[in-house]
Amino acid sequence: MANTRRICLLLLRFLAFASTLSAVIVMATSHERVSFLTISFETRYTNSPAFKYFVISNSVVTVYGFLALLLPQESLLWRLVVAMDLVFTMLLISSISAALAIAEVGKNGNNYAAWIPICGSVPKFCNQVKGALIAGFIAVITYMILLLHSLHTVLDPLLLRKS
Amino acid sequence: MANTRRICLLLLRFLAFASTLSAVIVMATSHERVSFLTISFETRYTNSPAFKYFVISNSVVTVYGFLALLLPQESLLWRLVVAMDLVFTMLLISSISAALAIAEVGKNGNNYAAWIPICGSVPKFCNQVKGALIAGFIAVITYMILLLHSLHTVLDPLLLRKS
Repeated sequence: MANTRRICLLLLRFLAFASTLSAVIVMATSHERVSFLTISFETRYTNSPAFKYFVISNSVVTVYGFLALLLPQESLLWRLVVAMDLVFTMLLISSISAALAIAEVGKNGNNYAAWIPICGSVPKFCNQVKGALIAGFIAVITYMILLLHSLHTVLDPLLLRKS
Repeated sequence: MANTRRICLLLLRFLAFASTLSAVIVMATSHERVSFLTISFETRYTNSPAFKYFVISNSVVTVYGFLALLLPQESLLWRLVVAMDLVFTMLLISSISAALAIAEVGKNGNNYAAWIPICGSVPKFCNQVKGALIAGFIAVITYMILLLHSLHTVLDPLLLRKS
């Protein structure tokens, strides 16, 4: 029982690591060249501060996720890992929310502010951003499961055990 | 000592409640009428999905903050409050990140996507949004302090006590 749980947790940590890594790769490689009359320019993730923030935070969490995979099961540092999980989950949530808000404007535009949707002219870029956001979303969900599991173990918030 | 700590925590909870409440009020009352040739329209927070999300999440957390203020000190529900603090802090972080991303585009625009900054034409609206974001930021910081305090108490992640 304890062994199955350990393998499950390890698999979840690996999934979290893999999804942040793919989010970084997919977002960082997204670019599309647009020609408009004589002007030609490239659409990249660096054009938007929110997308840059998304790539930076996901890179940081990828490094952390890799280190957490290497930590031996018996280490006392696991208590620190719970606190770090909390901080990095918040970082991921913050970056995906910002990127999602910008992606929404990119897709639907905003009539009131006269911001036109751009997905019509750069469909490949938009699809890659969508892929990166989905990977980022999987990472957030995985870290939240890991976090709620740790909290449940140490806190017993639903008062299931007799105290 | 325990009494001072109790008062400090109560003050922090009151600050969190007050700042989410002000964030909601300031954002919800923000509007400015713009006239452009013969067209006149009103800029409101409802024009942007991210700002609507900000108002809704801050309202939810205000109600929760009020209920947490009323909870007696001896209640066993405080363990549940730690888990709820976690969930609502994440909600606040997500909403403020999305609103901040949109506000950044509103202030600086985005040259690449041809999104023009709007703060020049609606300065009063922009200032109110800025006020609401500052209040929301104070709320996030306060909830994070409360959360880290709870985590420190139950987890001792820095291994300060002997086990």
